[in-house]
Amino acid sequence: MTAAESYSELLRRSKALGVLNSCAAALGWDHQTYMPAKGAALRGEQMALLAALSHQKLTDPKNGELLAAVEGTDLVTDPESDAGANVREWRRGYDRATKIPQALVEELARVTTQAQQVWEQAKKKNDYASFRPLLEQVVKLKRDEAAAVGFNDHPYNALIEEYEPGTTVAELKVLFAGLTAELAPLVKKIVAAPKQPDKGVLERDFPIDRQKMFAEAAAAAIGFDFAGGRLDTTAHPFCSGFGPGDCRITTRYNPKFFNEAFFGVLHETGHAMYEQNLPAKHFGTPLGVACSFGIHESQSRLWENQVGRGRPFWEHFFPRLKQTFPAAFADVAPESFYFAVNEVKPSLIRVEADEATYNLHIALRFELELALLSGDLKPADLPGAWNDRFEALFGLRVPDDARGCLQDIHWSFGGIGYFPTYTLGNLYAAQLMDAVRREFGPALDDDFRRGDFSRLKGWLNQNVYAHGQRFRAGELCRRATGAPLSPKPFLSYLNEKFGALYGVC
Amino acid sequence: MTAAESYSELLRRSKALGVLNSCAAALGWDHQTYMPAKGAALRGEQMALLAALSHQKLTDPKNGELLAAVEGTDLVTDPESDAGANVREWRRGYDRATKIPQALVEELARVTTQAQQVWEQAKKKNDYASFRPLLEQVVKLKRDEAAAVGFNDHPYNALIEEYEPGTTVAELKVLFAGLTAELAPLVKKIVAAPKQPDKGVLERDFPIDRQKMFAEAAAAAIGFDFAGGRLDTTAHPFCSGFGPGDCRITTRYNPKFFNEAFFGVLHETGHAMYEQNLPAKHFGTPLGVACSFGIHESQSRLWENQVGRGRPFWEHFFPRLKQTFPAAFADVAPESFYFAVNEVKPSLIRVEADEATYNLHIALRFELELALLSGDLKPADLPGAWNDRFEALFGLRVPDDARGCLQDIHWSFGGIGYFPTYTLGNLYAAQLMDAVRREFGPALDDDFRRGDFSRLKGWLNQNVYAHGQRFRAGELCRRATGAPLSPKPFLSYLNEKFGALYGVC
Repeated sequence: MTAAESYSELLRRSKALGVLNSCAAALGWDHQTYMPAKGAALRGEQMALLAALSHQKLTDPKNGELLAAVEGTDLVTDPESDAGANVREWRRGYDRATKIPQALVEELARVTTQAQQVWEQAKKKNDYASFRPLLEQVVKLKRDEAAAVGFNDHPYNALIEEYEPGTTVAELKVLFAGLTAELAPLVKKIVAAPKQPDKGVLERDFPIDRQKMFAEAAAAAIGFDFAGGRLDTTAHPFCSGFGPGDCRITTRYNPKFFNEAFFGVLHETGHAMYEQNLPAKHFGTPLGVACSFGIHESQSRLWENQVGRGRPFWEHFFPRLKQTFPAAFADVAPESFYFAVNEVKPSLIRVEADEATYNLHIALRFELELALLSGDLKPADLPGAWNDRFEALFGLRVPDDARGCLQDIHWSFGGIGYFPTYTLGNLYAAQLMDAVRREFGPALDDDFRRGDFSRLKGWLNQNVYAHGQRFRAGELCRRATGAPLSPKPFLSYLNEKFGALYGVC
Repeated sequence: MTAAESYSELLRRSKALGVLNSCAAALGWDHQTYMPAKGAALRGEQMALLAALSHQKLTDPKNGELLAAVEGTDLVTDPESDAGANVREWRRGYDRATKIPQALVEELARVTTQAQQVWEQAKKKNDYASFRPLLEQVVKLKRDEAAAVGFNDHPYNALIEEYEPGTTVAELKVLFAGLTAELAPLVKKIVAAPKQPDKGVLERDFPIDRQKMFAEAAAAAIGFDFAGGRLDTTAHPFCSGFGPGDCRITTRYNPKFFNEAFFGVLHETGHAMYEQNLPAKHFGTPLGVACSFGIHESQSRLWENQVGRGRPFWEHFFPRLKQTFPAAFADVAPESFYFAVNEVKPSLIRVEADEATYNLHIALRFELELALLSGDLKPADLPGAWNDRFEALFGLRVPDDARGCLQDIHWSFGGIGYFPTYTLGNLYAAQLMDAVRREFGPALDDDFRRGDFSRLKGWLNQNVYAHGQRFRAGELCRRATGAPLSPKPFLSYLNEKFGALYGVC
């Protein structure tokens, strides 16, 4: 077999695996949307079977032989050519999947399934003690995983590699230290400002069918393709791109609070437009997969916050919002509404946090999971460490673990190393948007005021969506913005926006 | 490996195959309900991949070895024991799947996919000529399939074996001759009767949300478990039982015609209750699968017609119906409504046919597909043969092929041999219901008048649902009713019901 033939065979195998995984994605979506309650056991068996088939296809030793036959040949000399990028990412996936012993894979699946169930109850009952033994097991298994995969400096580097390849603990530490140093004083100034928004205008009656209509209109306006996707209702909103032509977003409606569904839909639409515009011809191969979790998150945050919480966006949409909910907004001025959706206020819950405090929540989690993984922090001491650090960052006492260290699902499913991608997403979003603004100038906001988002979407298509995993996140950022990732654009954006809003600069 | 060990391994393989096939069922349901239009190509790839994996698992030569190691041993001496029945049905499935050459399987898939697309257009444009070459290919391939599988007397026997194992052309010919001889004169008498219903009362305004509410209430009342199932909207209604705890039914709503959704839902609920009550512990093995297509159809027709078009059923539901649609039924007497939903009238379209004329539609198709398969009828001569025979049976001229030989999808997907199961279903339904009535007497109708269907459902559970494929359809019928299948209970039911309604006996 020539190198070219080996590469063709790898392509064929990768595409078949992509189709198989897309079946699991569709069943996962159904699980969270329409599946009747009694269908859970069968769904579990279906997902386990598909996962086993997928793992078997991924770790087939023949893949290793084919990769070895292609690596080092002319075909992959250019690491950013189709073959170069695909082979690089196949190798990363194959090595990771084959280095972790089967027994550890099964143990992780068993423990995290149990840990998620126990966590759900523990959170409900505010009972950290019941979750602690499971967290101890998860941390131990993730250390074993890091050891099996191999790492430099810190085991955390092996874990973050799964979500944000190429990023390191050393870089993240610098990033978070810089962010925290600037965010904490900004938030303090905002809290102390005499001018404050009236959030009450968002807590009126919003009939669900109208919320859906308005959210779908906004999603379509910014570029979601409803001929190749849907919006449905679920308990924990998500976006799932099955593959070309089929991307599903979900939300949940609160009939007494406008933000929950609306900004949730903008967020998922941001993810979805990335999925819908990945190059279809590369489906099932790395070139048809999103660059990283951080870049994916940048797309949701860009549309949710940079665009959807911006004044030009609401100059277009607020009159339409008033028509949709005439009773709720009859007495509300555009500026009051705009201020209300941009309220900054330290709060206990990450998923409800505003743009200015959000990354402090992540900084806290990053610190703690580093310490858990290194062994410097014992799970037994987690609640105390959480609460102390939280108070230092936010100036709030944590009243209970349910609203403290038990609030997130991530550690229960073994997602240690995942949290930083949220902050990376916020930073990438600001830096990308800064580059877009430099390129198009005031024309961009003029577009938004007319309800036209095609110029922005076109830029993202060219600079982000079209590349799949051809470049790592850092390189994608350099090419799109002319500079490596920096917290500066994000901090400038926050200072400018909230300084003006709250009159604190 | 002992026989017991071989049997255990067959069980394990069968159950895994069941789970795999249930994934395809879930994706098939999504395809017909929620999938966005642009998702069709990916869905096609997903279904093809799952079908290939399934076929590979089904035809694994190891299955043949395991079967051979169990057959002839004490384990299967009793053909109606768990192992006896499972091994019998595994053998049937394995032999059928392995006897048909892979090239023929692929050719059939290719041609029938194309034929369905061409048929859809041909029906729309009333253009039989465009469909004829595809039908010629389908007929030829089905003859090849019959030859590969092997048969006695008539190649049709090899095809019907897939849907109704144990049934033969010889038996069916006797059955249809007897039915036609009695039905044709009955229908003539009804048509000539001076007393006729006013179908107009069913063609008023029926808001879709209320239709859904009323249909769901009726489905729940007769026994559909909504904790283990759902009702959704689709273009071509169906029931799909994924497996234990998850069965989906679908319907379509006509805001100007009551019957379409309501009786459709009763029909699918009949199928669904069979699926929901198959023994869950046998899921994935023949004992967890419905007996035959004819018996499955008997369950839909029993609830749709024997129960749902009966007077006691409407004595309970008509007052509720009037509350649900007060405007539409304000001036309608219960007896007028009951007569209207039982109108008998020869018509062109099978799926809209009433209880008395329905089987004449099937008799026509049975005759013609026998002749197509034997070569006595050339596809080129089909429209003429259809139209002549239709006029002889129904006394109506067929105005065009769209409402004639192009109306059904079955031949385009290669389902030659499928149609008789509809008539078998009607006959089994009547014979089962006759046995139930003999057992419970007038108490049964008293139940229905109170909206209580549990006694009937309990009997079906014990006599039909619980057995899976332990018995072939004929034996199931003998055990449940004390006699082999006969058209007599069905004909008595029709004569009694419609004789009284139309005053023609």
